[in-house]
Amino acid sequence: MSDMDNRLKRQFEFCLEADKEKRIKRRTLLSDGKTAENDAEHAWHAALMCVLLSEHANEKIDVLKTVTMILIHDIVEIDAGDTYAYDEGAKLSQRERELKAAERIFNILPDDQAKKYRALWDEFEAEETPESKFAHTMDNIQPAMLNNSTGGKVWAENKIKLSQILKRNEITPEGSEKLWDYSLNNFIMPGVEGNKIIDN
Amino acid sequence: MSDMDNRLKRQFEFCLEADKEKRIKRRTLLSDGKTAENDAEHAWHAALMCVLLSEHANEKIDVLKTVTMILIHDIVEIDAGDTYAYDEGAKLSQRERELKAAERIFNILPDDQAKKYRALWDEFEAEETPESKFAHTMDNIQPAMLNNSTGGKVWAENKIKLSQILKRNEITPEGSEKLWDYSLNNFIMPGVEGNKIIDN
Repeated sequence: MSDMDNRLKRQFEFCLEADKEKRIKRRTLLSDGKTAENDAEHAWHAALMCVLLSEHANEKIDVLKTVTMILIHDIVEIDAGDTYAYDEGAKLSQRERELKAAERIFNILPDDQAKKYRALWDEFEAEETPESKFAHTMDNIQPAMLNNSTGGKVWAENKIKLSQILKRNEITPEGSEKLWDYSLNNFIMPGVEGNKIIDN
Repeated sequence: MSDMDNRLKRQFEFCLEADKEKRIKRRTLLSDGKTAENDAEHAWHAALMCVLLSEHANEKIDVLKTVTMILIHDIVEIDAGDTYAYDEGAKLSQRERELKAAERIFNILPDDQAKKYRALWDEFEAEETPESKFAHTMDNIQPAMLNNSTGGKVWAENKIKLSQILKRNEITPEGSEKLWDYSLNNFIMPGVEGNKIIDN
């Protein structure tokens, strides 16, 4: 097999493997209030929002880099599963499970791309660069928007406290103060006022 | 309401409207061979493939522009529904249904963005620029990859002929000769050889 054929083979093997992300269910419900969202739908939605809302980033960001980060950010969940943001037990083992998954999944790609996209995922995880911060802002605001659209159903069912949401969103304003303010005032506070989020 | 508040309101209204794309089912099955893919999953998958495979484009492409095009390319189907590539009856009214949908949906955005993303969708539809051609290559190769992964089930169930597939893919090599060759040899021809695609 030629080098090019081998390269294409590994690229398409990764592309097909990625399809499994569509089977990973999240806790968030779609705006129909019935269907659990999956990782692929979430990544598409957050990537689209990144393109449309990038003008509100605190710092100038490389939009393609940020969108790419969002498109791949949950791929490790093919092996590691979705870890609910407010499941403290599952979160203890999350890092270890996801590192193992990253090791297997990114290495399906040709070596140069395996290295590149693994580094991009590591950058997302580290939450240090403007792109990573904005990607996390999208990752957090997208489910808040959906939860508000279903009248706070998911928050109520999981007995979520405002303090948990605020802790989870510590990094959100670092990507965009403006979008965090919008999310807090228009998605989260209505949940507190409507008694869907516990006010403590 | 301040101009900025109004802008954010319209942007988030569009983002929430986009959620409905997750309810639009396609004919393609996921690699599990059971679940019908939806438009959001398809757009995520094709956008990811665009990032990973852009090095194989015939002409140099603006990857962010192409990815953005892919992220929004099916949004009109929220109103117009999915039109199966081989349903000649439905295809007669497709353009009219989709134009009407584009008019409503893009105009939810602030005026400047409505204009910008509508123009990008028009560019995708026209299939003339390198970005639009590569976006169509992804749009066509992604379902071929999935159909092959399920042993050609969807092709067989819909009694698809090789000539229909070749006609549908007339534009595919214009985005990337290399990826079209790969798709023809590794996804489509196995379907012909395994009698899942009718050989005429």
